[in-house]
Amino acid sequence: MPAPDDEALARPFAGRRRLESLDALFAPRSIAIVGASQDPRKIGGRPLAFLKRYGYPGAIYPINPQYPEVQGVPAFSSLGACPAPPEQVIVALPAQKVPAVVAEAAAIGAKTAVVFSSGFGEAGAEGKALQQRLVAVIGDGGLRVLGPNCIGVMNVRERSYGTFQLALESGTAPAGGIGVAVQSGAMGSHLLTVCRNAGIGLGCWAATGNEADIDVADVIAWMARDPGTRVIICCLEACGDAARFRAALALARAARKPVVVLKIGASEVGKAAAASHTGMLAGNDAVFDAVLRQEGALRVESLEALVEIAYVADHAAQRGFPPDRAARGRLGVVTLSGGVGVLLADVAAKVGLTLPELPRDAQRAILDLVPFAGARNPIDSTAQVNVSPELLDKCLDIALKNGDFDFLVLFITGVPYSRDLGSIYLRMLGRARRRYPETLMVMCAIAPGAYRRRVERAGCLYIEDPTRAGIALGALKAIADLHRGAPPAAPALRAEDYPPIPRAAIDETGAKRILAAVGIPVMSERLVTSAEDAAAAAAEIGFPVAMKIVSPDIAHKTEIGGVMLDVASADEARRGYERLRAAAAEKAPAARVSGVAIAPMASEGVETILGVVQDPVFGPVVMFGLGGVFVETLRDVTFRAAPFGREEAIRMIGEVKGAALLRGTRGRPPADVDALADALAALSRLAAARRDDFAAIDINPFLVRREGRGAVALDALIVPQGI
Amino acid sequence: MPAPDDEALARPFAGRRRLESLDALFAPRSIAIVGASQDPRKIGGRPLAFLKRYGYPGAIYPINPQYPEVQGVPAFSSLGACPAPPEQVIVALPAQKVPAVVAEAAAIGAKTAVVFSSGFGEAGAEGKALQQRLVAVIGDGGLRVLGPNCIGVMNVRERSYGTFQLALESGTAPAGGIGVAVQSGAMGSHLLTVCRNAGIGLGCWAATGNEADIDVADVIAWMARDPGTRVIICCLEACGDAARFRAALALARAARKPVVVLKIGASEVGKAAAASHTGMLAGNDAVFDAVLRQEGALRVESLEALVEIAYVADHAAQRGFPPDRAARGRLGVVTLSGGVGVLLADVAAKVGLTLPELPRDAQRAILDLVPFAGARNPIDSTAQVNVSPELLDKCLDIALKNGDFDFLVLFITGVPYSRDLGSIYLRMLGRARRRYPETLMVMCAIAPGAYRRRVERAGCLYIEDPTRAGIALGALKAIADLHRGAPPAAPALRAEDYPPIPRAAIDETGAKRILAAVGIPVMSERLVTSAEDAAAAAAEIGFPVAMKIVSPDIAHKTEIGGVMLDVASADEARRGYERLRAAAAEKAPAARVSGVAIAPMASEGVETILGVVQDPVFGPVVMFGLGGVFVETLRDVTFRAAPFGREEAIRMIGEVKGAALLRGTRGRPPADVDALADALAALSRLAAARRDDFAAIDINPFLVRREGRGAVALDALIVPQGI
Repeated sequence: MPAPDDEALARPFAGRRRLESLDALFAPRSIAIVGASQDPRKIGGRPLAFLKRYGYPGAIYPINPQYPEVQGVPAFSSLGACPAPPEQVIVALPAQKVPAVVAEAAAIGAKTAVVFSSGFGEAGAEGKALQQRLVAVIGDGGLRVLGPNCIGVMNVRERSYGTFQLALESGTAPAGGIGVAVQSGAMGSHLLTVCRNAGIGLGCWAATGNEADIDVADVIAWMARDPGTRVIICCLEACGDAARFRAALALARAARKPVVVLKIGASEVGKAAAASHTGMLAGNDAVFDAVLRQEGALRVESLEALVEIAYVADHAAQRGFPPDRAARGRLGVVTLSGGVGVLLADVAAKVGLTLPELPRDAQRAILDLVPFAGARNPIDSTAQVNVSPELLDKCLDIALKNGDFDFLVLFITGVPYSRDLGSIYLRMLGRARRRYPETLMVMCAIAPGAYRRRVERAGCLYIEDPTRAGIALGALKAIADLHRGAPPAAPALRAEDYPPIPRAAIDETGAKRILAAVGIPVMSERLVTSAEDAAAAAAEIGFPVAMKIVSPDIAHKTEIGGVMLDVASADEARRGYERLRAAAAEKAPAARVSGVAIAPMASEGVETILGVVQDPVFGPVVMFGLGGVFVETLRDVTFRAAPFGREEAIRMIGEVKGAALLRGTRGRPPADVDALADALAALSRLAAARRDDFAAIDINPFLVRREGRGAVALDALIVPQGI
Repeated sequence: MPAPDDEALARPFAGRRRLESLDALFAPRSIAIVGASQDPRKIGGRPLAFLKRYGYPGAIYPINPQYPEVQGVPAFSSLGACPAPPEQVIVALPAQKVPAVVAEAAAIGAKTAVVFSSGFGEAGAEGKALQQRLVAVIGDGGLRVLGPNCIGVMNVRERSYGTFQLALESGTAPAGGIGVAVQSGAMGSHLLTVCRNAGIGLGCWAATGNEADIDVADVIAWMARDPGTRVIICCLEACGDAARFRAALALARAARKPVVVLKIGASEVGKAAAASHTGMLAGNDAVFDAVLRQEGALRVESLEALVEIAYVADHAAQRGFPPDRAARGRLGVVTLSGGVGVLLADVAAKVGLTLPELPRDAQRAILDLVPFAGARNPIDSTAQVNVSPELLDKCLDIALKNGDFDFLVLFITGVPYSRDLGSIYLRMLGRARRRYPETLMVMCAIAPGAYRRRVERAGCLYIEDPTRAGIALGALKAIADLHRGAPPAAPALRAEDYPPIPRAAIDETGAKRILAAVGIPVMSERLVTSAEDAAAAAAEIGFPVAMKIVSPDIAHKTEIGGVMLDVASADEARRGYERLRAAAAEKAPAARVSGVAIAPMASEGVETILGVVQDPVFGPVVMFGLGGVFVETLRDVTFRAAPFGREEAIRMIGEVKGAALLRGTRGRPPADVDALADALAALSRLAAARRDDFAAIDINPFLVRREGRGAVALDALIVPQGI
């Protein structure tokens, strides 16, 4: 695998958007609070209260002309009056006053401003105008602005709290390696509270609100480079700058940091609600889903899954658990309950982990200890071990010594409530952990909070529900798979290296010419303009032939009777020509007809559909599906943002349910997937290079022949832009 | 809907298996403990300790010849020495001593025995023999036995504890309406602990262990009739008596009690582990899945989902929430966070709930209060309400007054940690609950345990994670849908009313004759035995025709070249006859050939596949799928245990992914689904009536024509039993 070119990936974060420009957001050496309040429960009072309570080590400058001190901290009358320019300026003022303060912050050389104030883009026409004024004030200068309408930023590791979120009144999370990048403050606050209650460590945390300047992409990209961040979780409603968002994910993948994403707005109602909430386009959810995969991010569907997977991934990263082992995914299960062992085997199968059978002699050794144990894996040591705990210790050791496991789950249900046994089992797991450090271990149990902490101190994960434990470990494997073979940064495509797409109607022959020019195989065909030429061309090609009307104005030829198949003789070809012209004249009298195309009848193969659509968020997006019922009845299609290479195309092909048909089934030979992948990649390059020149491309059918025999476009349609 | 005939459903629970025979399992008036121990932490000591600790009101008889008292309770030297025959006898003795004690219990007139002892069916050949002895001792008498190798039974409402599970040492669950029927003791114990920690109320609880007598079906059936049980949750590894299991589910459905099932052993490893663990057949998981649906049970995939759905369903049942409203599924969402509103809209769409838009004037009223609120539904009252809580109160009221909601979710994230606001929001929800009692309400928040209790006392549900809240409400709808139109008990089918299936090879003509006799339309065809007859028959039918070799020994005719389609003339038919005979003679020289069948060429339609397989658990099971790639590539099939009616067949048809093809797509007319459903139902009756006479039936293809034009079997195969 070629090393991803980090600098190329970071290119969208250049100039004032360079990643270091957020250093003062997440690790400011001094913080001013404009609108600082004496009341620690008011929005302007909370950040100060939190900074004091959680021990922020830098300088704090409350700005309030009315008091010499605010909450006991010496206050200043204005930003300019501070003894030194603050690196971070928190703005807790009514919206109207914000632009002037931000301008002042920029003028004194502050590096970042955090604007809590609402009443901007989210607040009607007037608010939108005010946000535009704010954007103008920010301009091209060096000051980076978070918000407006955001609940702020924090970094638990740096004890820096530029936020007014209520959740912090009841405590903060422990310091740790999980970074949180969200748009919605409430979702971010929810995540903080869940982590705090579960004792899961957080690092940087930012809610981007209206994203007048800093957006989620900036935050993810910064975290990708931040040595303290090991895992990034992200809640997203809509995406402002798709290119930067993708680059940020690519940076995280290059740094081998898992990004787990909760992307909302998939449903129609959800999309409408998201659009009205954020004012941003939601795009096609299936496309968003595909792009997340393409960039190596894992998508989940709940806030609790975000936290749980981050918990496991952070643990794995912290102890240097190799992604290759996660990808291998060999799971050992040791339980006191046959039933839960079976449950875990079922979950494992679903998430792609394997439960390899223990070698025979290891099984025999277990059965020698516990005669009626389940010894294959899952290993059911039976409830007998509650009477003789040393048996479990031995079973565990035999399993780990012989199973070559990447993951181990030990299920002991509510036993931790029994103090003696709970401690005994914990010591066992701790010993196993030390003896077999290469295996990632999960204690699956119901336990008081203190026990959970003890499990973690022993270097193991604690997850109460066995199904969840399986899902979380499956997510680790999924992340490793997504990170595998990360593509090198896409080379910049120069439009002029690709055939131009005219801004005028294009007939089939013209479309095929363009596709052929970028290396997509098309069915060779002859365009004729008389019945005699038709007969001659058909004879030359060899019967039977296919005949089709060619017109830039007729997109769906079959519907007007413009296609004839299995034409078997010169005479039929001659008559066919007349018939096709007559059909066009009758059904589409206004259409310009270029002539009739004569082509060999296609031989056997799997019919597929290749297409390009323009996504409102991600621009040109390549679609792939199998023909017939797969697309029409099952909507079994998949997407990738253009451009991409052959490897990504192969991943893409594997995602459709009908992919088995290409692999060959029921005596059918496997299809030429390489040729198909090459065509998809070529199409994606054309689509990216000429992104502004077309509205849609459709290759249907694209016939994929058996392995080694290539593939061919039988029909093609390019809809130019703006006509 | 005809009322289900409860008595018919209860028929499998007659004689010694009559439901009342378990009264003494769940509500014994006296309990003896054979092997009672002074040590409250030993297996023989725990039940006594629990009965004392949790206040069992009945008589307790510790049986121990060594002491006058055990744990302070007067003890007796034998069962016979008790002052009155105990209703329940707990047996905590080594396996070898169990049969004699069970015999004694029967002799003195005890009603039920609970055998903790292991070393029976789960323990090799010797154990199996011992279990057989135990079964023989139980015989046909009135004593019902739970176990052996089980951790027992309890009833929190009756304060009855015939169990030694460790979990009870740290406390029991509150009394409530959820019944727990499990095979695995550890899974049951896990469920108890989860419920206890969450304060969720339990009623009856039984772990059936080896099921020498009482099985999960008995337990579910008893709970179906128990007035105190409102919801039943069940963990199942394998099913001993399929007919009784199905009858038990039917009884619960007739009583409108939700049954939520965690059925494990779906994966190959899981199935192998389950089989070795329980010694019972696991059967085909897809069939099990279908039968659960057929009997109205909801299947879930985790222990925590079992508990959470039971929690919600019990709440709904307790307050008399009508299933019709659950089935309607109109969800209102009110949040402090636009993002979480969108998340809930997404989840709702996935689980089949709708978020109807509020009427325009209601939206306007909300916007008058909070100018930049989301007012359609989800209703995002914005974080502004944390400053002016009365606004939320008004928004909530407008939403509930105008939304006609069946469900409401109020999301307030971690606000309950802020004491004042938490209490204010709780009072609001309580008022809304009183004002709009017909809407089922969920508070979605992160809160200290005490707050959860307050939410519940206010008559609302508490669920922390919004995705889970949506899933749990979706499950309520799913249960209502599953219970809708419960079928009347199937009439007993008399084999003699159905055509016999010979125990000898059956050719296509013979198979079609049997199918036609039960009302399944088959393509009319003529069997001929000479070339001349072939030509004459073909001419009579009208060209083109199809011709097929007919032989009881050739199951797959196409593979030997035994089928000719589109035969267009008498001459072709004549030559065709000879060709088919020659093909058979060459490729299958040993086959007996009945002749050649001549049939009209089938007209257009959707090709489907109907079949019957013998499931090791459920017996004859009807399979349905669409032809071509649907079955071959996508394995898109569904099942139902035979017999069933037309309504069930229609549900079945709707379950395959390709069903859209039958509904008509892209200008295709809808297919005759009624004719298809009738054929499936007819096939299911034949399969049930003649269940012992065949190994498999295959109707492939079964051509379904457009609506109103019927359907027809083009080919059929019946594999007789045991040849």
